[in-house]
Amino acid sequence: MASIDVCLSPNLLPLYNLEGKLVIVVDILRATSCMVTAIAHGIDHIIPFDNLEDCAALKTEGYLTAAERDGQQVEGFDFGNSPFTYMGPELKGKNLAVTTTNGTACIKQSEGAKEIGIGSFLNLRAVAAYIRTTKSDVVIACSALKGKPNAEDTLFAGALIELLPELLPESDNCLLAQTLWVAAKENPTAFINLTTHVQRLQKLGIVDDIAFCMQPDIYPIMLLMQEGKIRKA
Amino acid sequence: MASIDVCLSPNLLPLYNLEGKLVIVVDILRATSCMVTAIAHGIDHIIPFDNLEDCAALKTEGYLTAAERDGQQVEGFDFGNSPFTYMGPELKGKNLAVTTTNGTACIKQSEGAKEIGIGSFLNLRAVAAYIRTTKSDVVIACSALKGKPNAEDTLFAGALIELLPELLPESDNCLLAQTLWVAAKENPTAFINLTTHVQRLQKLGIVDDIAFCMQPDIYPIMLLMQEGKIRKA
Repeated sequence: MASIDVCLSPNLLPLYNLEGKLVIVVDILRATSCMVTAIAHGIDHIIPFDNLEDCAALKTEGYLTAAERDGQQVEGFDFGNSPFTYMGPELKGKNLAVTTTNGTACIKQSEGAKEIGIGSFLNLRAVAAYIRTTKSDVVIACSALKGKPNAEDTLFAGALIELLPELLPESDNCLLAQTLWVAAKENPTAFINLTTHVQRLQKLGIVDDIAFCMQPDIYPIMLLMQEGKIRKA
Repeated sequence: MASIDVCLSPNLLPLYNLEGKLVIVVDILRATSCMVTAIAHGIDHIIPFDNLEDCAALKTEGYLTAAERDGQQVEGFDFGNSPFTYMGPELKGKNLAVTTTNGTACIKQSEGAKEIGIGSFLNLRAVAAYIRTTKSDVVIACSALKGKPNAEDTLFAGALIELLPELLPESDNCLLAQTLWVAAKENPTAFINLTTHVQRLQKLGIVDDIAFCMQPDIYPIMLLMQEGKIRKA
């Protein structure tokens, strides 16, 4: 019987043995939601970076570049971290280099895993379906907010676990995530509107992004990272 | 307006600025529950250690010694980590040196704080009352299970926050803890019986301890650490 576990912060990932496992990285607001949106709209592959310099350098290789720090787009990059900017027909067949405050750092820290998948509400059931086809143990790696666990990634973990009752919960973090999800699932957007993280984004004028990122199953695609590149599985 | 925050794991404590703050360390199963019980039954003060050697050395200074690793008493020490062993009349006026897997390590990691208090369900309202008398910002430091957040410490955090609506929640971890508490508070013991941590303790024959430690307000005392010694405030 395969197992499932949740890691609430990338700072706790060193406590988890990722060897041989499938890690699902999640950063609902907004890195992984943007990745799913971009690839659903025709981006071929995405390379995640944990720093601005390496990410910017990919411009010379013809990549579109995206960078977000503290909720806002960084000057000199083509994109920030809003899913609505990743919907244009001009994306088709292009590649994207991305760095964000939390999500891409979490991907880099998951690199000891056998496989890395990208999770968001936008592709929730596609992620669950992919997990069902593998025999791997799974760790859901929440990107958190500068290391502190956050509500929206934890909710996603609870939602995903609910879809996979056949997997054995590995630690009490599964119960924490599931309980949170059960408490919030009638209206997850209302729930996360209570959070300081969302209130901070709203102060930056980021409102539509939040409602968009909380929608389940808009894009029925699974993304995997292979040799440093994230693409459709 | 003073603030309150929750740190779900000692491994995340470096992300919190503890300077000038009151940290409430909690290890419901069972270190902080035992400390409250022992002092309620007449122990004068407790010195926490993060290693067995330093703890054992206090024997030569007339201290009773207690050590727990992986749920069980360590050979050569007077006590393990069961609250029922801290209720005898022979404890009166004695001092205790303690080391446990999670709780005492969390206390050591909180030493940058202005004040360190000891929290458990057994003295829940006394902790809330003490917090109300201070003007300090508060961080509830959960001892977790070998670094991974656990249900019972998180529940305690939620219960304590519920008693202090006048404090400003500092991060979304307050919302996580409160939501968990609201979901579980009708029967917190039934809730934590679902956890792997409790199931592991039950396999070790530790059943009564768990029910005991989940009882609110058995001992209306506040404990503070001063100059390395924990005693009644």
